[in-house]
Amino acid sequence: MHVSESLVISDADFQQEDANFLSRSERYDAAVRKSAQMILKLREYGISDPEEIYAYKNCVHRGRPEPLDLHLGMFLPTLLNQATPEQQEAFFMPAWNLEIIGTYAQTEMGHGTFIRGLETTATYDPATQEFVMNSPTISSIKWWPGGLGKTSNHAIVLAQLYTKGICHGLHAFIVPIRSMSTHEPLPGIEVGDIGPKFGFDEVDNGYLKMDNVRIPRMNMLMKYAKVERDGTYQKPPSAKLTYGTMVFIRSMIVGESSRALSKACTIAIRYSSVRHQSELRPGEPEPQILDYQTQQYKLFPLLATAYAFKFVGQYMTETYHRITGDINQGDFSELPELHALSAGLKAFTTWVANGGIEVCRMSCGGHGYSRCSSLPDIYVTFTPTCTYEGENTVMMLQTARYLVKSYRQASTGQQLSGIVSYLNEAHQRLQAQPVSSRPTVVNISDLASLVEAYKLRAAKLVEVAAKSLQGELQKSRSPEDAWNNSSIDLVRASDAHCHYVVVKLFAAKLGEISDTGVHSALSTLALLYALHGVAQNSGDFLQAGLLTVPQLSSVSQRLKDILAQVRTNAVALVDAFDYRDEMLNSVLGRYDGNIYEHMFEWARKSPLNRTEVHESYHKYLKPLQSKL
Amino acid sequence: MHVSESLVISDADFQQEDANFLSRSERYDAAVRKSAQMILKLREYGISDPEEIYAYKNCVHRGRPEPLDLHLGMFLPTLLNQATPEQQEAFFMPAWNLEIIGTYAQTEMGHGTFIRGLETTATYDPATQEFVMNSPTISSIKWWPGGLGKTSNHAIVLAQLYTKGICHGLHAFIVPIRSMSTHEPLPGIEVGDIGPKFGFDEVDNGYLKMDNVRIPRMNMLMKYAKVERDGTYQKPPSAKLTYGTMVFIRSMIVGESSRALSKACTIAIRYSSVRHQSELRPGEPEPQILDYQTQQYKLFPLLATAYAFKFVGQYMTETYHRITGDINQGDFSELPELHALSAGLKAFTTWVANGGIEVCRMSCGGHGYSRCSSLPDIYVTFTPTCTYEGENTVMMLQTARYLVKSYRQASTGQQLSGIVSYLNEAHQRLQAQPVSSRPTVVNISDLASLVEAYKLRAAKLVEVAAKSLQGELQKSRSPEDAWNNSSIDLVRASDAHCHYVVVKLFAAKLGEISDTGVHSALSTLALLYALHGVAQNSGDFLQAGLLTVPQLSSVSQRLKDILAQVRTNAVALVDAFDYRDEMLNSVLGRYDGNIYEHMFEWARKSPLNRTEVHESYHKYLKPLQSKL
Repeated sequence: MHVSESLVISDADFQQEDANFLSRSERYDAAVRKSAQMILKLREYGISDPEEIYAYKNCVHRGRPEPLDLHLGMFLPTLLNQATPEQQEAFFMPAWNLEIIGTYAQTEMGHGTFIRGLETTATYDPATQEFVMNSPTISSIKWWPGGLGKTSNHAIVLAQLYTKGICHGLHAFIVPIRSMSTHEPLPGIEVGDIGPKFGFDEVDNGYLKMDNVRIPRMNMLMKYAKVERDGTYQKPPSAKLTYGTMVFIRSMIVGESSRALSKACTIAIRYSSVRHQSELRPGEPEPQILDYQTQQYKLFPLLATAYAFKFVGQYMTETYHRITGDINQGDFSELPELHALSAGLKAFTTWVANGGIEVCRMSCGGHGYSRCSSLPDIYVTFTPTCTYEGENTVMMLQTARYLVKSYRQASTGQQLSGIVSYLNEAHQRLQAQPVSSRPTVVNISDLASLVEAYKLRAAKLVEVAAKSLQGELQKSRSPEDAWNNSSIDLVRASDAHCHYVVVKLFAAKLGEISDTGVHSALSTLALLYALHGVAQNSGDFLQAGLLTVPQLSSVSQRLKDILAQVRTNAVALVDAFDYRDEMLNSVLGRYDGNIYEHMFEWARKSPLNRTEVHESYHKYLKPLQSKL
Repeated sequence: MHVSESLVISDADFQQEDANFLSRSERYDAAVRKSAQMILKLREYGISDPEEIYAYKNCVHRGRPEPLDLHLGMFLPTLLNQATPEQQEAFFMPAWNLEIIGTYAQTEMGHGTFIRGLETTATYDPATQEFVMNSPTISSIKWWPGGLGKTSNHAIVLAQLYTKGICHGLHAFIVPIRSMSTHEPLPGIEVGDIGPKFGFDEVDNGYLKMDNVRIPRMNMLMKYAKVERDGTYQKPPSAKLTYGTMVFIRSMIVGESSRALSKACTIAIRYSSVRHQSELRPGEPEPQILDYQTQQYKLFPLLATAYAFKFVGQYMTETYHRITGDINQGDFSELPELHALSAGLKAFTTWVANGGIEVCRMSCGGHGYSRCSSLPDIYVTFTPTCTYEGENTVMMLQTARYLVKSYRQASTGQQLSGIVSYLNEAHQRLQAQPVSSRPTVVNISDLASLVEAYKLRAAKLVEVAAKSLQGELQKSRSPEDAWNNSSIDLVRASDAHCHYVVVKLFAAKLGEISDTGVHSALSTLALLYALHGVAQNSGDFLQAGLLTVPQLSSVSQRLKDILAQVRTNAVALVDAFDYRDEMLNSVLGRYDGNIYEHMFEWARKSPLNRTEVHESYHKYLKPLQSKL
């Protein structure tokens, strides 16, 4: 990673004016310029490993999305995974050499996470051996794909396949959308940018409307499903094969939650150690705002969270690689669990990080609102993760479905394995002992004991959700209505399950750390993470009889003690995230702490300061004065 | 209000291209043009009542802040309130006629809420009878005032007054900053825009650095404090006189919380009744997403909150006017309570609304991220309220100071009056009966009973904070350290107090409503608001013994029932906020529900679509292809 950073940061070809001072069209223009440079340099340096490419790209664009993201991250990989050798021959090299610039067009105006509802059609015409692509309604217009608006000349389009009058569901088609010589849209194609968004200024998220666009039969990706010349359809061998990418990307997003939150924490904690404000003791100098308990209470639990999510992200990547190995051996047994876990953790971590970034921003007072802080940019770049790759509430409900299914299996005496195995014992335990008579076991200073409490809380909330479902069914509702009428409980159960997993993985990570100083600092953070969660969800722990009222007061006191402990290491703990100033791009988060001078220097460069007198004075204010 | 709306919306002079399609400089330019037009029209129509001006302005700028905000809202009123008759004669009419365009420059780079720390100096020179204005450090540069960067030619500058070698604290000075003929900065003045922010693109928030700028003695606002010719200083008669404006603005912000949240709710709830997605029952059409319980659980409590804050805002305005009347009679007795209440409620309502707007945005899926939804705009326009006019955590602590003081008075047997009077009885009650033996009194279907529970929760948390303070003092810490080490508890106490006030005022409002249909709908919302708060803070209610564990399950069930009830009226309840399409400016929130066609139409107008082929293709992509 650091090799890439040094290469990029010292490279004059990647310098640009501060993006905050550019219009959207200028930002898009600058991003295309840098992406084009990047492609050349990647070839020049011979960088081809996907993770190295990702790191290099991340440096070039300073963590921001860019117009070629979908070409590199979806179009090329989809060709590799779903094209036949013949198709790869036709499309891969042109795409590798950017004669074909592609995107992945799935989402439509009317449908996102619920992909079965997509309306775009691909109707096979055996007479010409072509597919006829259509956007039959306004809501079927492809909407949102990155790079679709202005950059791409091809798109992999997800469409309902019709052949011999029968719909066979969604399949992927390579559709040329712009001329490879003039870049003008092709006949039957209406394509453009979907307009400004909350962030993502560098990306031309686009729309695509197709009117009887004919593509050759071989433009359907046919490695698995096939349409023969006469229109005969051949099913793919397994529906699970498409799971993999989804699981991989959701696992990546967990890591992204940690990165975004750790950047925000770095900025806020460094700034809080430079900013002095108010009086703690009359007559003494103004203290650093990081000395205020309320500031610590905002920032330190988020710092602990950033570390927790980092370890969860690592675990997800490792697990993904391990299970991919199994899948390649034909063993799909762990896939459902991984699928459920990646859905829930994607939602859990992005929601928490999303809120946390804003807490960091607001903890910086007024200056957090300035774009020179980078905090607004981090937020708007990150917040779409709550929606893309599966809307978070839908993700939580997917995990809940797995939990409820597991719970029912445990109830009928099946022995569960894997991360839900706690539902075995918990089920017996919760059944055997009513809440009031169960002894409280939690030791609030012992992380293992807290992990146990989180586990029992999750078990309890899975049970509550399962019982709600059962109750609804007994009122003779349909299974679908029963599900909907229990969905608040189901989301809570998933949330508690994910929270347990995070605490558990954080605790497990400590066992791997041999350096005593690091171990001590991270143990304190893990305890902070766990206790803060108990305090925030105290109702659950009290309700489940896992905690007593007097213990709750001890939790408060213990939290305060831990905040004071973390204060000592806080700046070192964010320095350890190891973000270079060039990558953070934040005046408030500067490593040297020289904030005010650089803020002044930055402001002077603002476009409104290019002239001393803005033209609006001559156009409107001066004439107004003469009229009054 | 509606008269203004019709006047403005039909007025060709106020039309402009969608602000989302403009660069920041263009947005500033368009705002200055509209503000200049607005001044002319206000004179033409003879609109001079401050509230009417506010409504008109709000229409012209569609709820966004604008470059003349501080001229109209701070500069002119400060002249009226703090200038002597002689000064008014010199400055008021030129300012009224916009020869003088002014702003109010208080905040500096290094100090915001803690205004005693401001560093700008005004040193009286009796030799010339002038004040010498200086920005002695980088951190003393005035930073943030709206309209300061490019628009204003004068500023009321808050500075530490020095005369005869003694500092007399902050006073206000009228400082000319730009030439009234050329608009160029005057000698010794460095002034400009502070650069792009999270929102507020229309406003030239500015910086001001002064280097030995001399202004006449009469430019110090001398209605209260005075500096005589020889430099003799005369104190103002009362320090409380400056309280008023602060309290007024904070009260206004409470209303603003309701407006911003009600706009976001209107958009999200209308969209959720138009958007169809997924399957509830196999084979049936896709349901409106408002039929999903999880969607209702996100939006309906926020809808109830928007109504609650509306009533709280009304109460604050009425109370402000009543107490201002008292103050004019020389009765200051209620001012401390109002001051404490406005600080806490400003923080409580802005935090809740701030988070709520983002929940609304994310409940709209991908389309919520598009600027055509207006939700990003509502958020970035609103979020600074959490910081300006007093940073929220500091505000909560101010309220806590009042609560703890009141609690101590009650403990020593003093009889409290006003909104904290509950601390009288609560104190006795909590003292007399330990938590465990107290009978649980709350009836979760009865609003009055819930108000009582919120009251006792507040009393409990005030007690916890007061005891924490006491405990810290007994460890022989300084009062300042004790305060800091209890500040988490103090903020919680304020939060609970404000929550109680909101529930109480919502319940009280129901008594004023005679229409049975409206009364029934709002009673349901009030119950939803109260029960949702219990569920979100269940730990507090369990801890205080106000609720039992089995009751908590009933709360969950009751909440679900209420969501289903609110579903029937939800669209009517947001229609009742009565926002015209032109004011909401949201494709998703359109009254007619015709969303998809208008989204497509809006996107086609996006600046990136002005040419079919973006110039970056010719500049970077085409050349790249030839190099690979």
